[in-house]
Amino acid sequence: MPESWVNFAERLGADLHLELAGTGSRRAVLMRALREAIESGRLAPGTRLPPYRSLAADLRVARNTVADAYAELVAEGRLTARQGSGTRVAERVAPLPSTRPRAVAVPPRPVHDLVQGQPDPSAFPRGAWLASARRALNTAPHDAFGPGDPQGRPELRRALAEYLARVRGVRTSPERIVVCSGTAHALRLLARVLGGSWAVEAYGLPFHRGLLAECGVRTVPLDVDGEGADTGGLGRARAVLLTPAHQFPTGGPLHPGRRSAAVAWAGDTGGVVVEDDYDGEFRYDRRPVGAVQGLDPEQVVYTGSVSKSLSPGLRIGWMALPARLVPEVVAAKGEREPYAGAVEQLTLADFLAGGSYDRHVRRMRQRHRRRRDLLVSVLAERAPQVRVSGIAAGLHAVLDLPEGSERSVVKAAAWQGLAVEGLSGYRHPGWRGPVRDGLVVGYSTPPEHRYAGALDLLCRALPLAP
Amino acid sequence: MPESWVNFAERLGADLHLELAGTGSRRAVLMRALREAIESGRLAPGTRLPPYRSLAADLRVARNTVADAYAELVAEGRLTARQGSGTRVAERVAPLPSTRPRAVAVPPRPVHDLVQGQPDPSAFPRGAWLASARRALNTAPHDAFGPGDPQGRPELRRALAEYLARVRGVRTSPERIVVCSGTAHALRLLARVLGGSWAVEAYGLPFHRGLLAECGVRTVPLDVDGEGADTGGLGRARAVLLTPAHQFPTGGPLHPGRRSAAVAWAGDTGGVVVEDDYDGEFRYDRRPVGAVQGLDPEQVVYTGSVSKSLSPGLRIGWMALPARLVPEVVAAKGEREPYAGAVEQLTLADFLAGGSYDRHVRRMRQRHRRRRDLLVSVLAERAPQVRVSGIAAGLHAVLDLPEGSERSVVKAAAWQGLAVEGLSGYRHPGWRGPVRDGLVVGYSTPPEHRYAGALDLLCRALPLAP
Repeated sequence: MPESWVNFAERLGADLHLELAGTGSRRAVLMRALREAIESGRLAPGTRLPPYRSLAADLRVARNTVADAYAELVAEGRLTARQGSGTRVAERVAPLPSTRPRAVAVPPRPVHDLVQGQPDPSAFPRGAWLASARRALNTAPHDAFGPGDPQGRPELRRALAEYLARVRGVRTSPERIVVCSGTAHALRLLARVLGGSWAVEAYGLPFHRGLLAECGVRTVPLDVDGEGADTGGLGRARAVLLTPAHQFPTGGPLHPGRRSAAVAWAGDTGGVVVEDDYDGEFRYDRRPVGAVQGLDPEQVVYTGSVSKSLSPGLRIGWMALPARLVPEVVAAKGEREPYAGAVEQLTLADFLAGGSYDRHVRRMRQRHRRRRDLLVSVLAERAPQVRVSGIAAGLHAVLDLPEGSERSVVKAAAWQGLAVEGLSGYRHPGWRGPVRDGLVVGYSTPPEHRYAGALDLLCRALPLAP
Repeated sequence: MPESWVNFAERLGADLHLELAGTGSRRAVLMRALREAIESGRLAPGTRLPPYRSLAADLRVARNTVADAYAELVAEGRLTARQGSGTRVAERVAPLPSTRPRAVAVPPRPVHDLVQGQPDPSAFPRGAWLASARRALNTAPHDAFGPGDPQGRPELRRALAEYLARVRGVRTSPERIVVCSGTAHALRLLARVLGGSWAVEAYGLPFHRGLLAECGVRTVPLDVDGEGADTGGLGRARAVLLTPAHQFPTGGPLHPGRRSAAVAWAGDTGGVVVEDDYDGEFRYDRRPVGAVQGLDPEQVVYTGSVSKSLSPGLRIGWMALPARLVPEVVAAKGEREPYAGAVEQLTLADFLAGGSYDRHVRRMRQRHRRRRDLLVSVLAERAPQVRVSGIAAGLHAVLDLPEGSERSVVKAAAWQGLAVEGLSGYRHPGWRGPVRDGLVVGYSTPPEHRYAGALDLLCRALPLAP
């Protein structure tokens, strides 16, 4: 034990032994020792700790090291810091989740990640984005730095209207587009404006169901089969939330008849079709399926974002709305809370209008397709018994599993160090129809050099032929 | 009337006369003519308009001109556009507010703006911001382009903790800072987490009172005098919202005794002091008054933003929170909705850490001080009867007016083409104590070359000596 720790004990005037076990930075070691001393009660509640400057001098470490450790322990509620009374052990240390390893066996932290949802963050086009930021900052009108329009910058709404028409067949105008911080934000706004109960796909993102519930919207599951969601019996729902380009997560496009049925239902009942076009740009073997919105812009809310194409860190999404909903949705956003910053909006407008977005999507599409092809060929060779579906588009595929085996496969993968999810986690809790066992394999997240390794682990976790 | 308009009438097969009165762009003239024809009923509901390409060819204008006009009329609900049936006059044209001049006299659109609240948008430091964006994009770790931490990027939280400690005497740590999209966002989150009824200053931002009410928080007004808000009788409020550095809008700093009283009340009752430090960096004649938060970081929530210092268009703000509130506030933000984009957050972190923020604030402080000095000297010369207060800090001053004259002075200013607000608009509607007549003069918004003109109009609107 270094001498300095003894000094610390003496300074406290207490018979204190600090356990300096384990590795890590000086700050981590110090924090661990202090936590242990507090939790064991050897540093009694109310005990005043030495000023961080003195302790740092004693320990011969940087002042920041001690100050940070104190601050973090204060943030954890283990210490308190009040002016005039110094840093003390908190009177009642709130029970905190233990950071020690639990006695039960847990799988290792995953090394490989095939959970769907994120593009590879290392593929973000930093240079092209900076070039757009430069042009945006050089050419922005002064009013861009004023309070801003909650509907979104007109430059971005123009660029989006043009892009969505050209690439996704969306029929809209800049006046009908509302910029927001992503699909989740769009759904919150729509839930507030529309209310009621919504039909949703029996398989879908639990996060979306959860946020609708938070906003007071009850969700009712629709059957999903090889032709997408069954839109035949929408009844008296206020809205239906669909993923028509590539059903999430099962993977097929919505059948044309079911598209028309949804739009006709909306026209007849005054209901609203909410189209989540989360990965519409990524289709590999033929032209993308156009947006349902193009069938009837007055009945369909189209939502999209840059989260799958560029980065979820940018927090920019959009809605193309029926004219009648624009004022209410803008009002729901709040007068002074445009949320997406003006510089980012102008940067994205330039990125779209100058063709950088097209180029990036094209490059990513090629990359995703290569990854998809590798997934399919590796499975064909090493696990030919497994049926793969949903591969015509998107950033993930579904692997069918024998009935009752899903849980154990996910667990086996976790023990291999591979994070991957089962279909059951996407199932609506109220769904009483037929269920499927399967894996949802996202192939966009791993960096290039780790993808093959992830596929190898996946194959090891799959069940052998029955 | 140009021949092309006749063609248009013929093409519709109707005896149509389009009024081409007035000036403006081709699109504006076309829209006005179409609106008039629709509203008068001469273009009957259901009438199909020619395709925009044909009409553009006929009129010899750009296709976009016609397409935009159609799109805007669709957005207004005057036309409908459905696939397969072309663009038609809407069946039931919803009543829209008339765009024609009303019969009653209205003041001209203001040419000069002395409404408080916004920094001059032309002063945004574009070059320095771009330099920070470049460094941020070049050095960001890959995970910056992943889903992100709802609490905010650690780089920004570190830079803010350091800056706020140095400049505002805030005692915090990166772990206690939550990044949000501005003070309004911070108040919404706090209202949701704290609930209850809040004490607010009898004079304050109606926008803040309104959003608290929206979130279900009842506000109770506190008397405001020359020593700021009277924090003596906070009673059983859940929180008190204060502007201690520079009472908004009356302009004084909160008296030290009242600061301690607020913090002591919080400690005794478990209430929370919410400190809106909206312009704490801008103090002119002596050192800035430190934040109340420094007295007791466990009882005070400190909020700030870049809206007054850089631009409200960036949508970045922050809170320094008592440790116990961090998890709840982060949860209230929502798991996948960090709101402020990662690139902007990293850019601001660099802007703060590299000293650009200090340099910009210093430059703006000098500029605001010159403007304040000019305001004071012009008034001393041309309206010596008017008492000016709140000038030691901030971006606005208060001009006292004779009792009962406020409304007519604001109106007189509007007729001169000058936008400026009276004190009464800031008064809590539930306030039953003494009231003041006065003008709130914001001097930060006008561009440099228009400031003197605005002051001239202000003097002309002021009442002569009694």
